Amino acid sequence: MFNDFKITDDRPVYIQVRDYLKRLIIKGSLQAHQKLPSTRELGLLLAVSRNTVISAYAELEGDGFVYAVQGKGSYVAAVSAPPGAAAPSYEIDWQTRINGYARQAVELDRMKRGISADKSVISFTSIAPDEKLFDLDNVKRAFLDRIAMEGGVLLNYGYAKGYKPLIDYLLKYMEQKGVDLSGKDMLITSGFTEAFDIVMSALRRKDGGSVICENPTHYTAIKNLKLNGFDITGIPMERDGINLTELERALKEQAYDCAYFIPSYHNPTGIVTSPEKRLAIMQLMARHRIPVIEDGFNEELRYSGSHVSPLIATAGQGNGVVYIGSFSKVLFPGLRVGWVLADCRLIDNLESIKRARSIHTSTLDQSVLFQYLHNGNLEKYLKKARAEYKRKYEWTKHCCEMHLPYKRLSGDGGLHLFVEFDECFDTTALLNACSSQGVIFTPGDMFYTDGGGRHTMRLGFSRVPDDDIGKGIEIIGQTAKQLM
Amino acid sequence: MFNDFKITDDRPVYIQVRDYLKRLIIKGSLQAHQKLPSTRELGLLLAVSRNTVISAYAELEGDGFVYAVQGKGSYVAAVSAPPGAAAPSYEIDWQTRINGYARQAVELDRMKRGISADKSVISFTSIAPDEKLFDLDNVKRAFLDRIAMEGGVLLNYGYAKGYKPLIDYLLKYMEQKGVDLSGKDMLITSGFTEAFDIVMSALRRKDGGSVICENPTHYTAIKNLKLNGFDITGIPMERDGINLTELERALKEQAYDCAYFIPSYHNPTGIVTSPEKRLAIMQLMARHRIPVIEDGFNEELRYSGSHVSPLIATAGQGNGVVYIGSFSKVLFPGLRVGWVLADCRLIDNLESIKRARSIHTSTLDQSVLFQYLHNGNLEKYLKKARAEYKRKYEWTKHCCEMHLPYKRLSGDGGLHLFVEFDECFDTTALLNACSSQGVIFTPGDMFYTDGGGRHTMRLGFSRVPDDDIGKGIEIIGQTAKQLM
Repeated sequence: MFNDFKITDDRPVYIQVRDYLKRLIIKGSLQAHQKLPSTRELGLLLAVSRNTVISAYAELEGDGFVYAVQGKGSYVAAVSAPPGAAAPSYEIDWQTRINGYARQAVELDRMKRGISADKSVISFTSIAPDEKLFDLDNVKRAFLDRIAMEGGVLLNYGYAKGYKPLIDYLLKYMEQKGVDLSGKDMLITSGFTEAFDIVMSALRRKDGGSVICENPTHYTAIKNLKLNGFDITGIPMERDGINLTELERALKEQAYDCAYFIPSYHNPTGIVTSPEKRLAIMQLMARHRIPVIEDGFNEELRYSGSHVSPLIATAGQGNGVVYIGSFSKVLFPGLRVGWVLADCRLIDNLESIKRARSIHTSTLDQSVLFQYLHNGNLEKYLKKARAEYKRKYEWTKHCCEMHLPYKRLSGDGGLHLFVEFDECFDTTALLNACSSQGVIFTPGDMFYTDGGGRHTMRLGFSRVPDDDIGKGIEIIGQTAKQLM
Repeated sequence: MFNDFKITDDRPVYIQVRDYLKRLIIKGSLQAHQKLPSTRELGLLLAVSRNTVISAYAELEGDGFVYAVQGKGSYVAAVSAPPGAAAPSYEIDWQTRINGYARQAVELDRMKRGISADKSVISFTSIAPDEKLFDLDNVKRAFLDRIAMEGGVLLNYGYAKGYKPLIDYLLKYMEQKGVDLSGKDMLITSGFTEAFDIVMSALRRKDGGSVICENPTHYTAIKNLKLNGFDITGIPMERDGINLTELERALKEQAYDCAYFIPSYHNPTGIVTSPEKRLAIMQLMARHRIPVIEDGFNEELRYSGSHVSPLIATAGQGNGVVYIGSFSKVLFPGLRVGWVLADCRLIDNLESIKRARSIHTSTLDQSVLFQYLHNGNLEKYLKKARAEYKRKYEWTKHCCEMHLPYKRLSGDGGLHLFVEFDECFDTTALLNACSSQGVIFTPGDMFYTDGGGRHTMRLGFSRVPDDDIGKGIEIIGQTAKQLM
């Protein structure tokens, strides 16, 4: 007994002694009502100071593992149901206990089945920002500023709707994009994904649920639409946005519960929908009275061209558009903050769902983000990030033009390019051939709503060093040519 | 033009000039291809320096609101669809567009319809911790330590399963409560609520879905069980936990998809289930092969008695218990972190649901919590918090014994007491009579699964000053006696 105690460096010694004794008690090595060695004695046995043992015993008494008898010493408390004492250890076959929703969530979980790449692999699969660009000092400053101003309030419960200063800031931010705020309100969520999931969970489904959207589109949206039980109709993309003729035809054929669009910087094609097309889309939506979910994805990361109003601005005083925004890709994805801007009656409903699902979004995330924005860092950071990503974007584009036998290349900004090869080419076969040479990317078929897109791929460049971009795309190009 | 510009103190002036011009462009006051005043001229008009205007113009050009013509000056860009330009502003009647789930979420949203109390009101409705106890300096230290060690990684995407160092810490923490970790795994969530919602969303429902639990029970659980479509059977509580005879009878009568228990420090009654009862409960669950969702609510905030093993420890190597833990009430609710400890096959499914719903829990929250724990603060903080809450608990109990004409008073720790009056007494009427005298509490009926409990109430004391506790309970007592 007591001869297997080992001190490590990472925690106070009395805590280690406490935990060591706890384990012995729980395991039953020290039994109920057994007298413990005196503090002096145990100090010698464990080679720690007597004071350390005194502290450990005090902790154990506080936690109910030990009780003291005046003038006699410390005794082991009757800890309940030690393992082995008729422990009813039954087995559940969990795979038969989970439902279709859970199974579908696993099936659609591409991330889980993604190729795990070691550091030597050149990976174009990520469209997360490059953390080397993060201005950590300003984040630190924001945190310290906010903690100094509000202290404990930040660490206590907040509001389901969100952190008020952040809501006010973002409302103003959206107003400057031309949004008419009258009759509208905002809900803060844990990023775009939670926002989208909450919105879709709240919508009435006529005829089982159907959504119209661009094809291809954001994979997370496809996944969450399916998990929420919606059928998806995808409309092909053109150079300047969705194909209007096809959109109109589809709207005539069938009723839709809502539309989902990414006009700003379309994921995965990188296409920015033209102002004219935005107006035409909204006219169609108005005619058919279809609520629009607008994904504001990365509209801050365009590198050229004039300002384009979001659909929710185009809709003026109308309340048909539900705008979902996030600074995840623009600033820091680790801060899980997104927002829904929509009709205030809808927001009122969504707020209750948010409260039921997760009470509220992390106040720390929200307040740090607010203070960071309030301190005027967004502008400075965007300038730096845009310059760097634009440089990388142009280099990646150049490499694609040099090496890839593509049919079409798209992407007007952001952190990735979209490549279409000849219709009969298969990018999954290409991926297999490339990954054995240490280069991976995302085959485009996952973004398609109809099983198409097997000849496409997405190249995320934000986290790939310049040299690797060149090397990687050259390998993809050579391999593609061999396969053709 | 340009005469309504006003400088405020809160932001850099060039940003204010930029935003002012943006608004004019979006509103159409400055029209496409119109020449802007020279920088010198606009500086004079707005009474700002020329350099300020130069910076503002550069920003506007970067954002695509303005373009420069070499040697000629700056021009307004063709900003899309200015309001008024055939803006298709259609209206959606959102109340008819939302579904039953959203409506039920609003209906069950007690928080939204809670009495809003101004500062003069003595409110016993909260069971949130007292933020005056928070050790902010240690939280600050944890943040700075972690940011120094991992920097940008914390701000980029993390893993759906959770932040590895935190998972490792919590696994060890649970092992020290006697849990056999073999075959088990952990998922980090945004607090207890998200964890519970995710678990319940994944469970197969036989015959439409039914859950057995204590009556009364945690309101959030009742709400989320209903929102997930489960019928709820509540079994009465006794002094030492659930009524075993009733539990056994109910289990014989009907099959249940799962059980939900709060053995540690039951909300709202404050009862700690005895070790003997825990064993008996688990034997019943094993016999009927019912998965158990164990809510570890506030087990760290018991003030007396020996250590009691959680059900998941009692189950030994069995995989039937899904344990949900959180430090929300113990430490900081603002850090939205909870965890699910369960069979690894189940966790694998839950991880995919978590990813689909919110990608991952805030890395900032997780890493600050981890570092705070790792720095050894939990023990110190718990000691301080326990001492203070115990003092308050005893004072509140004393006041109840002095003033309240109760039948039964329960609560062995934590941040609240539960009061039962005579069966025919109505605490909602009591609340109405008290609130006009500036005292509010939570009527207990909301915690009942069967519409009962109209004669009960919960008194949260954690955030009420000592004097107010005395004054408030005296008023409740006097009013109750008058109503009887």
